[in-house]
Amino acid sequence: MAGIGKTRFGALADRDLRSLAVEAGNKALSDAGIVPEEVQAFYLGNFAGPEFTSQNHLAPYISTALGMAGIPSTRFEAACASSGAAFFHAFLSVAAGVYDTVMVMGVEKMTCQPNPRVTEILCGAGDCGPGGEMAAGSTFPSLFGMIARRHMHEFGTLREHLAAVAVKNHANGFLNPDAQMRKVITLEQAMNGRPIAEPLNLYDCSLVSDGAAAVVLRASHLCGPDAVAVLGAAQASDYVALDRKPSITTFPAVREAAFRAYAMAGLGPGDIDFAEVHDCFTIAEIVATEDLGFVERGRGGFAAFEGETGRAGRIPVNASGGLKSKGHPVGATGVAQICDVVRQIRGGAGEMQLDRHGVGLAQNLGGSGATCVVTILGEPSRGEGRVL
Amino acid sequence: MAGIGKTRFGALADRDLRSLAVEAGNKALSDAGIVPEEVQAFYLGNFAGPEFTSQNHLAPYISTALGMAGIPSTRFEAACASSGAAFFHAFLSVAAGVYDTVMVMGVEKMTCQPNPRVTEILCGAGDCGPGGEMAAGSTFPSLFGMIARRHMHEFGTLREHLAAVAVKNHANGFLNPDAQMRKVITLEQAMNGRPIAEPLNLYDCSLVSDGAAAVVLRASHLCGPDAVAVLGAAQASDYVALDRKPSITTFPAVREAAFRAYAMAGLGPGDIDFAEVHDCFTIAEIVATEDLGFVERGRGGFAAFEGETGRAGRIPVNASGGLKSKGHPVGATGVAQICDVVRQIRGGAGEMQLDRHGVGLAQNLGGSGATCVVTILGEPSRGEGRVL
Repeated sequence: MAGIGKTRFGALADRDLRSLAVEAGNKALSDAGIVPEEVQAFYLGNFAGPEFTSQNHLAPYISTALGMAGIPSTRFEAACASSGAAFFHAFLSVAAGVYDTVMVMGVEKMTCQPNPRVTEILCGAGDCGPGGEMAAGSTFPSLFGMIARRHMHEFGTLREHLAAVAVKNHANGFLNPDAQMRKVITLEQAMNGRPIAEPLNLYDCSLVSDGAAAVVLRASHLCGPDAVAVLGAAQASDYVALDRKPSITTFPAVREAAFRAYAMAGLGPGDIDFAEVHDCFTIAEIVATEDLGFVERGRGGFAAFEGETGRAGRIPVNASGGLKSKGHPVGATGVAQICDVVRQIRGGAGEMQLDRHGVGLAQNLGGSGATCVVTILGEPSRGEGRVL
Repeated sequence: MAGIGKTRFGALADRDLRSLAVEAGNKALSDAGIVPEEVQAFYLGNFAGPEFTSQNHLAPYISTALGMAGIPSTRFEAACASSGAAFFHAFLSVAAGVYDTVMVMGVEKMTCQPNPRVTEILCGAGDCGPGGEMAAGSTFPSLFGMIARRHMHEFGTLREHLAAVAVKNHANGFLNPDAQMRKVITLEQAMNGRPIAEPLNLYDCSLVSDGAAAVVLRASHLCGPDAVAVLGAAQASDYVALDRKPSITTFPAVREAAFRAYAMAGLGPGDIDFAEVHDCFTIAEIVATEDLGFVERGRGGFAAFEGETGRAGRIPVNASGGLKSKGHPVGATGVAQICDVVRQIRGGAGEMQLDRHGVGLAQNLGGSGATCVVTILGEPSRGEGRVL
């Protein structure tokens, strides 16, 4: 991991998709200390650029603006895990020796559409077929609302537990200068937000955002001794429709991706110092901490409430503020999480810096668990020698 | 190349996107003699499924319906070269030893939208930015109309030459049972079609289609002695906007992809027995035959008119009927071309079968030359030992 670059996330009315992408790409090149001509392939994660902005064929549209005409330039789509999927495929190529130097980017420009249309576009990540969940009137907030209610029913999770995740991530995001929403909230505020899809209220939902993030991945012989290594990475899939899952309070694709990434790294959940997980909704963070093995199944809400996932806790989760506070430009989120993990490992996370930051994990989810990408990063010495 | 499978192409009102995809996928599995559980990763090429059908997150939506839940399932988008790009990345993964068995598929369902909306969606493959070609009122027929006029001006290409490509591809498509349009036309008919974007008329334009195609790629130790080998493959990119090109009668991305694919195969244009090229318009076939090195620059129109690219000619091009006659479900086209090449090499192309069929080339273009994928296939003995 030779270089990282991110734009600010937010409702950036004066910025178009390509200008965000170019800013993130140039920052990553500069951070890696390379020129565009050294990049051998371009991997773009973008969920719904054509629907948000009318522009399709985005990979060469962006890579040529960065001075990289000629090389393979390809867009990867896997819903909100689009740039996680782009990263996974880029990692495979470099690890297998196909390329020495590649760029992976995620970008999304969402705020150019009115909110009802944004919700409709996001529904495309679920089952829109005849008789499917979306045809029945679901949206992603309502699907995750059902997951939350079921989690409460099965495990005794309380409304306060969901609120505790929101309070934590807002407090963390307050320390992040790039976050969309830098606003500390109280448990009382988080309990009493405007209802969205009960039991979820406004404070349980992530944001509609514009933003981009990029990384430069290089083979280890081209990296300096302080480069951050990819210790493990995996992508897994499952049914798109929530009603096809035997249980809606655990995601097999997350467990499968985590299992494979841990196996590649030769590490287990107990070896992870901190994590950025996909908190598109507060309940999603709770389920993720369980599926990743940080807490026992059913204990995720209690753990958040008791501070185990706080900055000073046993396993800090979303020290960046998460999607909740940092923002969630969907196609950008996977690579943005990886940038945040790299900054922590390097010790350069400023006010967000954690004490223990040797090994970090990023978990990027698509839809209601149909795609998951898990990436484990760390100082090269921390892995089992399978680093790049 | 262990197995291939295609649906019929056409305006298939009774078929949705997923049923086409599942048909092609099951045919490829059956042709390869494997079960879904043996597939380790799924590579889907699709250009604009979300805009045509509202359904996004298409890779797990399809792979789970084929019985492949769990594995990495990812959609690749590179305009009309989407499934060519998916194939290229799948090939790299198998060649580099990451996977032993993968499925690559291309699918598009276009006829569910009215024609003006189809044209608008296709415009997304060009530059839709402020001041760009599409904002100025261009469409793809008008861009390729400009290319045709410039080619006439520079090289003396005649209207009859464009018509000769249409006549040839219609005659070839008449022999293809899966083709959308099985209709022989005369040179006079082809000269006098309804004007679309002068000098292009109706007979110079490919079709709006529904369809899917799939292949199973396996490492060579898992393939039988009659498997077809990937001898060379490359993907290249260029500016999306046609006005950014120094010349509009040659595509640098095609020349670059061809150069790299020939180098990987250790072959040159003279070693290619036949080719499937991306004739989205007749002029595109003419330019492709030049950029691939089959004829000298500027000679493409003359060569077609003189029969050099006919079934009985020196280098048969689009013996399947091409996009012109077979149909052009955009995201499916790249893999469909590869299926057609494999059928010829196996000697199983029925009435379309060519006499010389040892080494075939497929060229898949995105936009007006912003993406190109070139794949060279052949009997394993024909390459330089770099086969899988």
